[in-house]
Amino acid sequence: MSFILTVLGSSSAIPTATRFPTAQVLNVHERFFMIDCGEGTQIQLRRFSLNMSRIRHIFISHLHGDHMFGLFGLFSTYNLMSRKTDLHVFAHRDFGPTLEHYLEYFGKDLTYTIIFHPFTANKPEIIFTDKHVSVQTIPLRHSVPVAGFIFREQEKLLNVNKEAIQKYGLTIRDIRRIKEGHDFQTEGGEIIRNSLLTLPPYKPRSYAFCTDTLCFKKLVNYLKDIDLLYFEATFSDKDKKLAKMTGHSTSVQAAELARSAGVGRLVMGHFSTRYKSTDRLLKEACSVFPDSYAAEDGDQYEVRLTRSISSPDKGRWPETGGIQ
Amino acid sequence: MSFILTVLGSSSAIPTATRFPTAQVLNVHERFFMIDCGEGTQIQLRRFSLNMSRIRHIFISHLHGDHMFGLFGLFSTYNLMSRKTDLHVFAHRDFGPTLEHYLEYFGKDLTYTIIFHPFTANKPEIIFTDKHVSVQTIPLRHSVPVAGFIFREQEKLLNVNKEAIQKYGLTIRDIRRIKEGHDFQTEGGEIIRNSLLTLPPYKPRSYAFCTDTLCFKKLVNYLKDIDLLYFEATFSDKDKKLAKMTGHSTSVQAAELARSAGVGRLVMGHFSTRYKSTDRLLKEACSVFPDSYAAEDGDQYEVRLTRSISSPDKGRWPETGGIQ
Repeated sequence: MSFILTVLGSSSAIPTATRFPTAQVLNVHERFFMIDCGEGTQIQLRRFSLNMSRIRHIFISHLHGDHMFGLFGLFSTYNLMSRKTDLHVFAHRDFGPTLEHYLEYFGKDLTYTIIFHPFTANKPEIIFTDKHVSVQTIPLRHSVPVAGFIFREQEKLLNVNKEAIQKYGLTIRDIRRIKEGHDFQTEGGEIIRNSLLTLPPYKPRSYAFCTDTLCFKKLVNYLKDIDLLYFEATFSDKDKKLAKMTGHSTSVQAAELARSAGVGRLVMGHFSTRYKSTDRLLKEACSVFPDSYAAEDGDQYEVRLTRSISSPDKGRWPETGGIQ
Repeated sequence: MSFILTVLGSSSAIPTATRFPTAQVLNVHERFFMIDCGEGTQIQLRRFSLNMSRIRHIFISHLHGDHMFGLFGLFSTYNLMSRKTDLHVFAHRDFGPTLEHYLEYFGKDLTYTIIFHPFTANKPEIIFTDKHVSVQTIPLRHSVPVAGFIFREQEKLLNVNKEAIQKYGLTIRDIRRIKEGHDFQTEGGEIIRNSLLTLPPYKPRSYAFCTDTLCFKKLVNYLKDIDLLYFEATFSDKDKKLAKMTGHSTSVQAAELARSAGVGRLVMGHFSTRYKSTDRLLKEACSVFPDSYAAEDGDQYEVRLTRSISSPDKGRWPETGGIQ
């Protein structure tokens, strides 16, 4: 029951020798959701050994090149790989003409179908849902319409205690009813209370992705209690004027938001190329919110399963073996 | 007086973790000419420490994504860098609509001008010339119109012997005339023959770039005596049927062509991802034409200056210190 984020690109608009433009993959139960697709994303997928065939849904936050110029190469590579599975692309409605241009000039006779799901990014909206996960947009503030994305695991049913199954000889039908919260009546007519038969369900996990944006108060409500938050920290606190001017945020703003919203962990990215190292930005963020991390390309962050009554697990994935 | 090729991408259509799609830079006298621009080219320029501001001319062989999807990111990065210098793009005329789409949706208000030079790729044609170099297209054979490019240094003037300058007190005007081949008359009326005053000129150097294409006889004439030839070897000799089917060439075909045309050195690239290593392809080529090389991303190949009467220098750049 995976819930693992892989950062494929952590640079801001201009890539560097070590940081690609923005792209990520969120693995929810071995189903891979791509978030943004900057230039070179398909190369990063190979570098970090992610199986690109598993991707069926791509979410594009906004239509700046550093968040989407990797789409065309990926589309073409899928075609060369004779992909058959539909590919769902969620993006601002203005992506339509660019997709049409690609299909006319580079993607005639694709072996698969690209299904475009336009959104407007001007209000919170559930744009995807299945039995595992829902994806909600949140409107961000930048020079063009930008959507943040919140991925939430669906509410989980109760877990039936293995010992209870044996003790009472529960059938599959019994188990289904108990999972839904019902008590159980034995053949002898005895009522066994549901709480004696079940464990608390696993807590649904959540991930929020926010870039490029100014930091503003309303975000605290949107991001309340999110387990893992990726938030842009294009600038250091010392350059906060520049952040405001360019519609971006600083490390301190990201950390203050994380603290106010009570998120589990904060991962920062979209770093300006003006900083040779992210040490300063990380220090600034950690002084406000200790569970802050500065992403590197290839980093993975896992949100582990916890029962609803226990405290959230804040362990960072690479500590027990990650890609880098 | 540099004449150095840097290979930025050596993969065929699908990039790998270590090979980017096709792109190169030819440094002629510290003026950088880009040839093809596959996805991620701007990242490779940074990885291999090439100054991207020096690029003023980009030559695109054909309109398949793996040869041009890096243009959009590069265009946008130049804008973010506040580029002022014109950028000249030479490509098949069908590139027009794609450039227009980019300019309308992603490149409004660029800080610089992109000047598009369309060609048809159906006949040999000089498409660029200045005082240092000329660029000629050659028509290749693939599923779409493809141009090869031949870069030739302009013919050089004679070099005036330093000792002669001192001995006869030559003025700048004298030197200019002697460089053009004239004899020199001393104040005393003595005629000094031009050959006694000059060294043979440096031999104009040449580089040819050919991908994606079938190998065909006429290429021998086009590529006669080229100093450095980059030719695609998408496939091994054992897969020559596949090469023919897909409009590509094999290592052996590339080497036979190099031998027949009497080129200085052959660099192969555009390798299919089906080969884990290029060892086999290199062995196949070297058995036909010993001065064959299998390109890796970041490899540099220099053509050194030689006097017209001496034999061509075939030393390979990385042997005396290259990027990799």
